[in-house]
Amino acid sequence: MDRKRFPADEWRLVETRFSAHDLGVTETLFSVGNGYLGLRGNVPEGRVAHAHGTFLNGFHETWPIRHAEEAYGFARVGQTIVNVPDAKTIRLYVDDEPLLLTVADLECYERSLDLRDGVERRDLVWRTPSGKRVRVRSERMVSFVERHLAILTFEVELLDGEGPVVLSSQILNRQDGQDEYEVPAAALGEGFDPRKTNAFEGRVLRPQAQRGDDKWAVLAYRCTNSGMTMAVAADHELTTTNDWTVRTERDGDLSKHDFVVHARPGEPIRLTKAVSYHSSRGVPVPELIDRCRRTLDRVRAGGIDAEFARQRAWLDDFWARSDVEVPGQPGVQQAIRWNLFQLACASARAESTGIPAKGLTGSGYSGHYFWDTEIYVLPFLTYTSPQVTRNALRFRHGMLPAARERAADLATEGALFPWRTISGQEASAYYAAGTAQYHINADIAYALVQYARATGDDEFLMREGAELLVETARMWAELGFWRADGSAFHIHGVTGPDEYTTVVNDNLFTNLMARFNLRAAADVVERLRVERPEQYADLADRLSLGEEEPRAWTAAAAKVVVPFNEQLGIHPQDAHFLDREIWDIGKTPASKRPLLLHYHPLVIYRYQVLKQADVVLALFLHGDQFTAEHKLADFEYYDPLTTGDSTLSGVVQTIIAAEVGYRDLAMEHFLSSLFVDLDDLHHNASDGVHVASAGGMWSALAAGFGGMRDHGGELAFDPRLPAEWDELTFRITRRGTRLRVTVRPTEIAFVCETGEGTELSVRGQAVSVRPGETTVVPLDGQGLVRPGRPLLRDLRGNRRDDGTLITMEVPGA
Amino acid sequence: MDRKRFPADEWRLVETRFSAHDLGVTETLFSVGNGYLGLRGNVPEGRVAHAHGTFLNGFHETWPIRHAEEAYGFARVGQTIVNVPDAKTIRLYVDDEPLLLTVADLECYERSLDLRDGVERRDLVWRTPSGKRVRVRSERMVSFVERHLAILTFEVELLDGEGPVVLSSQILNRQDGQDEYEVPAAALGEGFDPRKTNAFEGRVLRPQAQRGDDKWAVLAYRCTNSGMTMAVAADHELTTTNDWTVRTERDGDLSKHDFVVHARPGEPIRLTKAVSYHSSRGVPVPELIDRCRRTLDRVRAGGIDAEFARQRAWLDDFWARSDVEVPGQPGVQQAIRWNLFQLACASARAESTGIPAKGLTGSGYSGHYFWDTEIYVLPFLTYTSPQVTRNALRFRHGMLPAARERAADLATEGALFPWRTISGQEASAYYAAGTAQYHINADIAYALVQYARATGDDEFLMREGAELLVETARMWAELGFWRADGSAFHIHGVTGPDEYTTVVNDNLFTNLMARFNLRAAADVVERLRVERPEQYADLADRLSLGEEEPRAWTAAAAKVVVPFNEQLGIHPQDAHFLDREIWDIGKTPASKRPLLLHYHPLVIYRYQVLKQADVVLALFLHGDQFTAEHKLADFEYYDPLTTGDSTLSGVVQTIIAAEVGYRDLAMEHFLSSLFVDLDDLHHNASDGVHVASAGGMWSALAAGFGGMRDHGGELAFDPRLPAEWDELTFRITRRGTRLRVTVRPTEIAFVCETGEGTELSVRGQAVSVRPGETTVVPLDGQGLVRPGRPLLRDLRGNRRDDGTLITMEVPGA
Repeated sequence: MDRKRFPADEWRLVETRFSAHDLGVTETLFSVGNGYLGLRGNVPEGRVAHAHGTFLNGFHETWPIRHAEEAYGFARVGQTIVNVPDAKTIRLYVDDEPLLLTVADLECYERSLDLRDGVERRDLVWRTPSGKRVRVRSERMVSFVERHLAILTFEVELLDGEGPVVLSSQILNRQDGQDEYEVPAAALGEGFDPRKTNAFEGRVLRPQAQRGDDKWAVLAYRCTNSGMTMAVAADHELTTTNDWTVRTERDGDLSKHDFVVHARPGEPIRLTKAVSYHSSRGVPVPELIDRCRRTLDRVRAGGIDAEFARQRAWLDDFWARSDVEVPGQPGVQQAIRWNLFQLACASARAESTGIPAKGLTGSGYSGHYFWDTEIYVLPFLTYTSPQVTRNALRFRHGMLPAARERAADLATEGALFPWRTISGQEASAYYAAGTAQYHINADIAYALVQYARATGDDEFLMREGAELLVETARMWAELGFWRADGSAFHIHGVTGPDEYTTVVNDNLFTNLMARFNLRAAADVVERLRVERPEQYADLADRLSLGEEEPRAWTAAAAKVVVPFNEQLGIHPQDAHFLDREIWDIGKTPASKRPLLLHYHPLVIYRYQVLKQADVVLALFLHGDQFTAEHKLADFEYYDPLTTGDSTLSGVVQTIIAAEVGYRDLAMEHFLSSLFVDLDDLHHNASDGVHVASAGGMWSALAAGFGGMRDHGGELAFDPRLPAEWDELTFRITRRGTRLRVTVRPTEIAFVCETGEGTELSVRGQAVSVRPGETTVVPLDGQGLVRPGRPLLRDLRGNRRDDGTLITMEVPGA
Repeated sequence: MDRKRFPADEWRLVETRFSAHDLGVTETLFSVGNGYLGLRGNVPEGRVAHAHGTFLNGFHETWPIRHAEEAYGFARVGQTIVNVPDAKTIRLYVDDEPLLLTVADLECYERSLDLRDGVERRDLVWRTPSGKRVRVRSERMVSFVERHLAILTFEVELLDGEGPVVLSSQILNRQDGQDEYEVPAAALGEGFDPRKTNAFEGRVLRPQAQRGDDKWAVLAYRCTNSGMTMAVAADHELTTTNDWTVRTERDGDLSKHDFVVHARPGEPIRLTKAVSYHSSRGVPVPELIDRCRRTLDRVRAGGIDAEFARQRAWLDDFWARSDVEVPGQPGVQQAIRWNLFQLACASARAESTGIPAKGLTGSGYSGHYFWDTEIYVLPFLTYTSPQVTRNALRFRHGMLPAARERAADLATEGALFPWRTISGQEASAYYAAGTAQYHINADIAYALVQYARATGDDEFLMREGAELLVETARMWAELGFWRADGSAFHIHGVTGPDEYTTVVNDNLFTNLMARFNLRAAADVVERLRVERPEQYADLADRLSLGEEEPRAWTAAAAKVVVPFNEQLGIHPQDAHFLDREIWDIGKTPASKRPLLLHYHPLVIYRYQVLKQADVVLALFLHGDQFTAEHKLADFEYYDPLTTGDSTLSGVVQTIIAAEVGYRDLAMEHFLSSLFVDLDDLHHNASDGVHVASAGGMWSALAAGFGGMRDHGGELAFDPRLPAEWDELTFRITRRGTRLRVTVRPTEIAFVCETGEGTELSVRGQAVSVRPGETTVVPLDGQGLVRPGRPLLRDLRGNRRDDGTLITMEVPGA
């Protein structure tokens, strides 16, 4: 980061100079949201922008996916998050001259996002073309407390001289309109980027109603294809000792309140704008208009200041549960907190929806939900805000009917979750790196079991959880098949996490995840049968579940193939991974990266080259099933083959690099994840926050450097404090007990902040942590430290000499 | 076939009753064409139709391929053959009532396609609503002699009573118009069919000029996107003793000549209509109009009858070179000749274009050229009309610049031919079953070498041929890679002919074809170097070809991996084919066939199930490289796994079934190919003739039942006459010598019809055939005959027990 422009500040992201050159990135970085409503950090004047953005989680338009060449079962329903009407816009005119940051003569400027109170603030002094100096202060927040509320303030003061001032507060349908100063998408890159969203044809938002008066206004819409409905309302309060009048204007795409003020010097003009959004799958708009009004009436009654105070209190609580501290590292500290704050913005009030890959900070990945949620974001939430995890898993449960239909499309049983979706229907138009990632079924199961173990929420596990586990396990049982002699259970034709290798047999990650899923399903059914016979009978009846089915899952789980190569002593990513040529990334010029933008898939697929961690992710999620030697060998093999072209990679590489002792490399991977957006390391931060990377960053801290593991419900620590750091503190909440964990070079300390305490282990040694005590465990350093980094193996060593060298390991039950 | 409606006739396809229920099929079956111009067998009245169709080979419109999800290197330029303005239409009105076959009261009706003179004829008596009887006779042909000419005649005679008769002769742009009675495509099937063509958006043909007078008219067009130009002209002659007048009408989409006749009974009215089409990549239309006029002026000068006579003479010569006779089997004989005639219609005057998958009989597969040409059609042409093969190969040579660009897109060297194309650019929008079929490079090389060996055309081989072979071999050398110990050359990430298994490693067919290609390139370069040093120097200079490159090809060819499984004694289709589950086709209901319309590709791909012959095709094309035992084992393994969902399968299965002794099964496969269109066995004959199957049918006769092989230029026979047949006679032309070959149960006879004679072998015994002699070789039966058919192997026998069972065989150089 340019520390002159963005100085390190432990609690705030601060911009000290406006620039129009990286608007896309700063709009993303200064985004605010609450998991339901998200506002990109566009300037309030609303003109110059990379992309104006206001998003409601799950509010999407559908369109028919047209495949250039069709086939049976291809995804049919395109789903794209809608850029809903923008209520952020408050335009300022002094002497009828507009404030436009790109050309304005600014005496001073600061924009900040305060992570303690969740408010974005801007403070500037503008010297107008006629020479007047004008102080302009604004604030913006999306409430974590009131799900449907955003608050904006805009304060203007003429510092010398008087004159006419106009504040034009607007709600603007940008989805179907034209942004005067928007940079054309084509000018932003040389060509296509498959990760970017499809364009709509025709009008998306159909105006249904407009109402209002001198203070408030509401606009309501229905989506043309999806039929979803929404309303947005704004309520204004102008406070000034100057004389003023107001003029309003409203049509289907615009609501405007122009506050015309005869301003005198030193007499501030303060406009507050409370904004409410409500949306639904199809509720008629009059109902949504009422909901907006009720939200705004409540705010008007309680006052704006109360909302700011409640926001602060909510965040105090959030940080008490969630903060991670690295004393003496202000730049790192700032970045950590910014990432954690963005996780809250992406998830806190998601509630009946999922957590999009970009949160609500951009339309990247079309606002879709992926496995990112379960594997990268939920671990953080499970250990800090478990109710949010519960909501996310309930949301998946609600998708079961669609997932059952999808399983039938793919000729399997049970349920198959879509690789990417908003509505529950598969939206991935490229099956090789989409639908073939069957592992999403097990990712959901994994997150569910982790949640249940960490919280003890048996009610959820045994009700929604059991149904999810049974239906996902059924898919695996049908997808896989037995070797005829009964010695192994194979799963073929799948894509693992690494999207640079697709449609393979016995992908190690997938098989281990499937094994977990199958066993978890059998376990929960058995617990139900023994502990809750009535509930069991009901489930068995509803799902036509006999007694033999769980036995078949257990049997399959026991014999799932785990590829292992004796000669190299490593786990091949899939049955035939080692047959491939090796791609020497070191010899690929930067101009050809990321590979996916410069090579045909057929080229990439035939090499040993990884977009993201695959086996290495399995080493983390199923770390109790690998020996230390295998972890080291696998990491050393795969790390040099991994491009990190996906931001999902660095965080995982961090964790295992730390575990196996590549301390410097762990820090390198960590920093590449920590700053992926703040430093725009992948050149696409403008599309929105990399939410999965942000979530994985927490895991990299807690599990990577903190050395925390929670396999099978056993909490364990084996820390790996970076040499550069004096101390690392993080919090986790487990079954009602909140622990503060502090790692120092020669000790680890636990404080029970709430709850009854817990048992855990540190490097195999049992430890009890009780309320009111600080438990300190001395550490003999931070594990073995290996110098340098693993190198690409000698090519000859990686080639198999004949068909006999790859053998299959079938670990016992 | 319904033999009441379509009686067996050895030289004619005859329809004795009109039906509107299978119009799509009969339109295809009664198509006529010459390889440049094709007319579907639509009724001349031009109303009721499944699909009106008039096609000029290679005349296509382009459109941007929009992928639902983009990636680098995906095909960009969609290409679709244009349905050019229809000059077939001649509408008849008696007493102002139109003749419409769907409702007409017909006293008698016969339509025939005479395979001796290439004329489609219709003869009917219509009882008009007012009770008049009208004899209507028409003829239609596309000249093999005049590439740009079609002739139509229409004769009307009132048999009793007099009245007004109108013959409305039209040219109608149907591509951009609306056909009044056309069956909507959506009503023809339940849903999508990936084999059908994309629709255009907006107007395709832009009218450029219209001219004419009372006798003739011309319409000229330019394609909106491709810029290709065309003109169509018609010249009329009305012959009658009745009084008549003519009225004309012309606009951009229509030319109309209405001949208004006061008809008296017994006084025939005969209209002849000579039609000319000219097209180009972009020549201005005035030039094309001139060309049309010149063609028509010549016809007018020489007379229509002369054209019919020249057509008959051309076909006499064609049959003398090409006929295959099966005496005593009129139904089979008719079908054989219909297929051979359709091959002539698809290829005879293709000249500077390719041979589309449907010929010029429909818009199926968008008029694209595939490997069908080289592997299925060229063998027939090479041995009967070698000049046509030469043209087809020259056409491929002309595509080299585009193929070089495509090779670069795919990160290989040399040239990579597109899987499907008209213009030379890849048009396959689904790479797994398209671009990944790299084998097309070697298919072209194979056809080229076969042509050169069969004709001795060294000039072509050493000039265009050498360049083609070098550039295609370079692609293989770059695509494949060496095992580190130098023991094997692998080719990964390819799709073989079987499109139910995609993107695999070391596909046996592909590897054998690549080996052939590599060796052929090295051989031709060596011959050039030794025999034609100047030409060699020129080639080496133009292609930057050093001396080490051919050595590398030879080395790679020597070590190309040929998968072989010791336990089963068979060649796996690819390195990991036997790892897959077996799909038991016998248990798949007919309602789920073909599989591609009922299962997601991910489902199909993970099973051992074949769309079409793959290893079995290699057994034919490289039969000298397999032992008899291996051929038998491979055929017995793959035949039960092969769905035949592709019509490319049956002909190949026929040849190897015959060779290994499954006589009944060979006949079954043969009949399924012979009647694929005539009996509409795949329910899509309406889309056009299966030209590859027709070509393969000739190979099934000559190579399958005739037992002909020509490996390495050694002509050999080992016949397999079906038990049902008394005799089989076919002709082949080789290096100027035309042989007539007759197989009987106990002998094979050769007659040298033209040329100097040849050496050959029969079952290993050397035979000389000299002009003027009949050489008879006695046969001890027709080879071993096996009862029944191979069955799906016991599943346990097909499972490999562990990773060690598949071994790689690297046959020596």
